[in-house]
Amino acid sequence: MEFKITGKDSNSSARAGVLKTDHGEIPTPIFMPVGTAGTVKAVHQRELEDDIQAKIILGNTYHLYLRPGLDVLENAGGIHKFNGWEKPILTDSGGYQVYSLSNTRKIKEEGVEFRSHIDGSKHFFTAENVMDIQRTIGADIIMAFDECTPYPCDYDYAKKSMHMTHRWLKRCIKRVDETEGKYGYSQSLFPIVQGSVYEDLRKQSAEEIASHEREGNAIGGLSVGEPHEMMYDMTELVCEILPEDKPRYLMGVGTPANILEGIARGVDMFDCVMPTRNARHGILFTSEGVINIKNKKWQKDFTPIDPEIGGYASTFYTKAYLRHLIHTNEILGAQIASVHNLTFYLWLVNQARDHIMAGDFNSWKNEMALKLSERL
Amino acid sequence: MEFKITGKDSNSSARAGVLKTDHGEIPTPIFMPVGTAGTVKAVHQRELEDDIQAKIILGNTYHLYLRPGLDVLENAGGIHKFNGWEKPILTDSGGYQVYSLSNTRKIKEEGVEFRSHIDGSKHFFTAENVMDIQRTIGADIIMAFDECTPYPCDYDYAKKSMHMTHRWLKRCIKRVDETEGKYGYSQSLFPIVQGSVYEDLRKQSAEEIASHEREGNAIGGLSVGEPHEMMYDMTELVCEILPEDKPRYLMGVGTPANILEGIARGVDMFDCVMPTRNARHGILFTSEGVINIKNKKWQKDFTPIDPEIGGYASTFYTKAYLRHLIHTNEILGAQIASVHNLTFYLWLVNQARDHIMAGDFNSWKNEMALKLSERL
Repeated sequence: MEFKITGKDSNSSARAGVLKTDHGEIPTPIFMPVGTAGTVKAVHQRELEDDIQAKIILGNTYHLYLRPGLDVLENAGGIHKFNGWEKPILTDSGGYQVYSLSNTRKIKEEGVEFRSHIDGSKHFFTAENVMDIQRTIGADIIMAFDECTPYPCDYDYAKKSMHMTHRWLKRCIKRVDETEGKYGYSQSLFPIVQGSVYEDLRKQSAEEIASHEREGNAIGGLSVGEPHEMMYDMTELVCEILPEDKPRYLMGVGTPANILEGIARGVDMFDCVMPTRNARHGILFTSEGVINIKNKKWQKDFTPIDPEIGGYASTFYTKAYLRHLIHTNEILGAQIASVHNLTFYLWLVNQARDHIMAGDFNSWKNEMALKLSERL
Repeated sequence: MEFKITGKDSNSSARAGVLKTDHGEIPTPIFMPVGTAGTVKAVHQRELEDDIQAKIILGNTYHLYLRPGLDVLENAGGIHKFNGWEKPILTDSGGYQVYSLSNTRKIKEEGVEFRSHIDGSKHFFTAENVMDIQRTIGADIIMAFDECTPYPCDYDYAKKSMHMTHRWLKRCIKRVDETEGKYGYSQSLFPIVQGSVYEDLRKQSAEEIASHEREGNAIGGLSVGEPHEMMYDMTELVCEILPEDKPRYLMGVGTPANILEGIARGVDMFDCVMPTRNARHGILFTSEGVINIKNKKWQKDFTPIDPEIGGYASTFYTKAYLRHLIHTNEILGAQIASVHNLTFYLWLVNQARDHIMAGDFNSWKNEMALKLSERL
């Protein structure tokens, strides 16, 4: 994997770059649609490529490990062959879902014991087997096994947890470095900064993570309920420590404004379920602000969803038609809204990139972050 | 509307034709995907046109009348403008859903009083207002208001009901002939033959319906639970009476084999929810037979769903991937299976048409009807 910075904003820490993987190039900053179980919900692979213009998607290790399972994925020749998405893929470590979906999980030094949310079966994730699992899934970028602390989280727990995440990281690195990808292309491990909302812990964690000099670095444990300003402060602090010549990935973030503020602080990669999850509930992100399409005011609005951003869903269908579909729980409503919201998110990071290259990112960002948060 | 027969099979009553409407030409025999509430479930309009190659779709008057409602549809400029499907559309009369969905409905000479299955509100459909409603929806082909008798149905009820349907038809014709389409294109009314499974009633009804010399004629009240052979016999009897130079539409039919047998008896148009409804439950119709994709045997089958029939869904995705999606209740599973099944249905009627033109329809039909009913 190679990362090249192609432009910097002079009034913020924003930068534009290109990340090269064996499955293709990714312009940064980039938003990565979440494809939980090997599918970005309600979106065809062709739509991801042609309409949304996604360059990389996510898969969730926890979900893929449970279904379809490693046997099927290995027989398919990896996740790309399994779902037909031949561009880059990133998988998380599975930790986040273990903490959020599994009722009964025990976190120990060795790893995490948990029960499947589907059938209650017992499983054990360790730093080592999570690397092996991600080798079998076959994403281009794989994530270290960490503990994502909740918010709020007391200082002592956050500190203890961070140190365990650091010890787990060493085990992840050892395992990854003594194994190889299974399908003939390389896989890059990103370690994850933790430390909750405590400045000294975040600083310590960022320094530890930076010291490993991996091909990219991630910031975890944010966007878990803390105030936005706190998230921005932690991101800024961490980005100042993480190496400048490596991509930085802010996990699970966020709203359009969150993403612009993250970019301004030096983040290159983002992922979030918000565009697809909110879409299924009729919340649309547009270049003019946020729309709740269920509101009566859109009932006879026969204008396109968002003609500014291009793409089939956003320009072909009207607000009135989409309102009807969401209102009647028609599957096509979820489809149109999901493709639209993702098209918007990719449009947004492309716009950010253009403005970084043009040198006016910061003023554009300040205006857009306000506008995009408005309720229409 | 014009109908031209372009080819006939010498060993059956099958014929190929072209039906011209103001929204374009329809090659026959044709299958019409059902777009209940102005959307073919889980299918984008672009997919209907490019992948499935649908030439005409259905809308359900009952559903469209309740939601989005006539006010929205009229403001949109009709159903085509509302949902963006610019090719031909057919609407049913609403009767079928009133009988099947509404708990409390009272059938009287004047019309049918019913309560909405959504909010329990009270409504009244009459021969006249159903014509007015279909004028407002704006389909190219509109259906007469009838009573679709269930199976089994005793002779006396079937006879009484048939006569009422005939009286309702006269009122429908009067109303349609003294009004005009609202959006600048013409709408053709198709009357419907009833008579349950009684030969004398079917004969009498077909003669009555034929006598009105409308632009097309429909056969209703079949495919409601009676044995297939009974449906075929009734269809054959009715087709022999209905005018040869007008399109014949067998409502709500059916399986691939049902459609081929209908074509063999002189039917030109079909509609059914089966391809989309079954798709959502993982039942796939393919050129090799029927697949229950949930079965374990498809878990590691990395071949395309059906490479023979063309279209994105059928050729891009594998059986193993679709199995995983249906198994995990992912929306994309419903999407792929729906597009595939409809692509197959349109492929089937196109094949039938080609074989009618080539003169070997009947032998091809006999072979295919068997093959397509096999469980793989």
